[in-house]
Amino acid sequence: MPSIITLTTDFGLKDAYLGAMKGSILSIDPHASIVDISHQVSPGDILEGALILLDAYSFFPEGAIHVAVVDPGVGTKRMPILMETNKHYFIAPDNGLLSLVARREKVKRYIHLTNGHFFLDNISRTFHGRDIFGPVAAHLSKGVAPGAFGPEIGSILSINIPAVEKKDGSIHGEVVYIDSFGNLITNIEKTALPEDPVVEIKGVALSFVDTYGSIAPRSPAALISSSGHLEIAVNSGSAAGFFSVKKGERVVVKAKR
Amino acid sequence: MPSIITLTTDFGLKDAYLGAMKGSILSIDPHASIVDISHQVSPGDILEGALILLDAYSFFPEGAIHVAVVDPGVGTKRMPILMETNKHYFIAPDNGLLSLVARREKVKRYIHLTNGHFFLDNISRTFHGRDIFGPVAAHLSKGVAPGAFGPEIGSILSINIPAVEKKDGSIHGEVVYIDSFGNLITNIEKTALPEDPVVEIKGVALSFVDTYGSIAPRSPAALISSSGHLEIAVNSGSAAGFFSVKKGERVVVKAKR
Amino acid sequence: MPSIITLTTDFGLKDAYLGAMKGSILSIDPHASIVDISHQVSPGDILEGALILLDAYSFFPEGAIHVAVVDPGVGTKRMPILMETNKHYFIAPDNGLLSLVARREKVKRYIHLTNGHFFLDNISRTFHGRDIFGPVAAHLSKGVAPGAFGPEIGSILSINIPAVEKKDGSIHGEVVYIDSFGNLITNIEKTALPEDPVVEIKGVALSFVDTYGSIAPRSPAALISSSGHLEIAVNSGSAAGFFSVKKGERVVVKAKR
Repeated sequence: MPSIITLTTDFGLKDAYLGAMKGSILSIDPHASIVDISHQVSPGDILEGALILLDAYSFFPEGAIHVAVVDPGVGTKRMPILMETNKHYFIAPDNGLLSLVARREKVKRYIHLTNGHFFLDNISRTFHGRDIFGPVAAHLSKGVAPGAFGPEIGSILSINIPAVEKKDGSIHGEVVYIDSFGNLITNIEKTALPEDPVVEIKGVALSFVDTYGSIAPRSPAALISSSGHLEIAVNSGSAAGFFSVKKGERVVVKAKR
Repeated sequence: MPSIITLTTDFGLKDAYLGAMKGSILSIDPHASIVDISHQVSPGDILEGALILLDAYSFFPEGAIHVAVVDPGVGTKRMPILMETNKHYFIAPDNGLLSLVARREKVKRYIHLTNGHFFLDNISRTFHGRDIFGPVAAHLSKGVAPGAFGPEIGSILSINIPAVEKKDGSIHGEVVYIDSFGNLITNIEKTALPEDPVVEIKGVALSFVDTYGSIAPRSPAALISSSGHLEIAVNSGSAAGFFSVKKGERVVVKAKR
Repeated sequence: MPSIITLTTDFGLKDAYLGAMKGSILSIDPHASIVDISHQVSPGDILEGALILLDAYSFFPEGAIHVAVVDPGVGTKRMPILMETNKHYFIAPDNGLLSLVARREKVKRYIHLTNGHFFLDNISRTFHGRDIFGPVAAHLSKGVAPGAFGPEIGSILSINIPAVEKKDGSIHGEVVYIDSFGNLITNIEKTALPEDPVVEIKGVALSFVDTYGSIAPRSPAALISSSGHLEIAVNSGSAAGFFSVKKGERVVVKAKR
């Protein structure tokens, strides 16, 4: 069975960084099967990287190794870490990038990556994806035991998705992610919705539909996203453009009277 | 021999969608070799997706499985389908995306994908790439017979490349695709060209050349594209920018007198 | 051991070109492991392509085959070539794209690719990535000896990174690459720097730091890039935007008095 190593980074696709990181993985484990999740996380946006990883990792087979590198603190004292859950491994800087997954999964252990034996020979101060995270993933994929990479630690740094508020019988949430179709993904989970919801954004009340094709062309509506959250979409268009909104825009849900 | 599964979508490369779809494929067939054709089809542009697939699929080895997902009607009654040709398999929504390939190849059968046994357990209403098309491709790659996925159907939905007109001894065509170099690809096939063609766009008559390097720097000319169509290019520049044109712009070909 | 074939091109990721090239490789060697380095080299920018390849190739395992296609002269008399070094193979048009690697590595031989037996059957005049470079890489990966592809030649075309000047005790260099974070990579190597350097760009004197995290937020500083060059960066921002600079901008280094 080939080992799967997924990559989620803010490296972009133009520069040599991604190629160098893949090369450093394949030089250690040429049999690794590398799968790109995304390299277009907004530069330095840890929460965005954490959300993308959160929506993708669970679809990969047991034993998959997920490497995430959004690392504005590279070269400082922030720890490089390995997180082992029931099914998967995760390797990243300890800056919150893994915390959304950690909250959802049963974590078996966290390890501080300290054993330089498994790093590249010359560690740069600016590119640990190539020099530390990639190489550790490749050694893990070759069968090195997690405990060999360093000591266990008790916890990791957390970041939070902005919280949803309930008041006056309404749910007050916000847009936390805008996808490349311009769909607005909110922090409101489908399990929190009333039976017959009315969704408001920028003073516009939206009807709730089952699927994009049920919306009138060029019109907006609300539906459930593929990750199980309240989403606002425009049929054959961009909801972000339609409403001129950015991440953080308030969204209110009421029950239809 | 590893099974090759190609992907052509409008998902973009930033969001979790592509990673989730690859994960759902690899969870079923970890040995599948996934190859990206394009994920930057303009959102919802079925004809553009069909043209990109048309120019790439035939270079893949026999037995390759091509999955195409440009699917504005996801979750509605449009059928998910499997098309088997002499050499390849194609999996897509039945919205015209496969019709240009169907017209060029000998089709053995069309199948309506109805057997939920081969889908993910929880089918979303918004993401059949991850929940239906990817999983079916992975099961096919593992050796499931095409007939197991559902009943045969007689035909699929067609879309058309705009037709070329011949009048007054001229060929009247149009720009149907603009590539990332800004080259203008027309619907005029090289076999339709007169021996010594004069090509006109926006009132400018262009000479016909063999290769980009035969064009004077920053100047436009016409030549044969790598897919065998009349193409208008600017040496070291963008023809789309030079002529300020979009898809649909008229192109006329006459024989030199 | 699977053969690794890396790709560095200016094809972009939208069009069918990249898929067609991968298909033509896999039709010859279905076991090849294709790794993308970059497909977003600026169209026709040979030096940029050469720099990206230069920063990535050395991290790949021995025996890797690197295909680079930035080929404005496709279809003209520029030669298709194969370069063999101590550890790797490189396949490209002879337009300077391989010359930066050639200067750093011990080259065993250069071969002019002339043996049409290893090309696709119908060679277009506009797309040798698909028709020549990809197929040759695939045959090489299957074990065809380099000498079978054509005759040895004595040298290849060179391009140069702009040279650094030393005058009045200062080093005068320039920005040669801007990465997707907006970091400015210069042509000044770390081995050329004085012990306590002061770096100037656009009249602003920058302090020299170890790592991005040592810079005050939104402020600029100089450091060593992951490829060992002097780099100018802005913490949590783009140095290119901060200084409004393009490639070619002068950078001066003095020793602190």
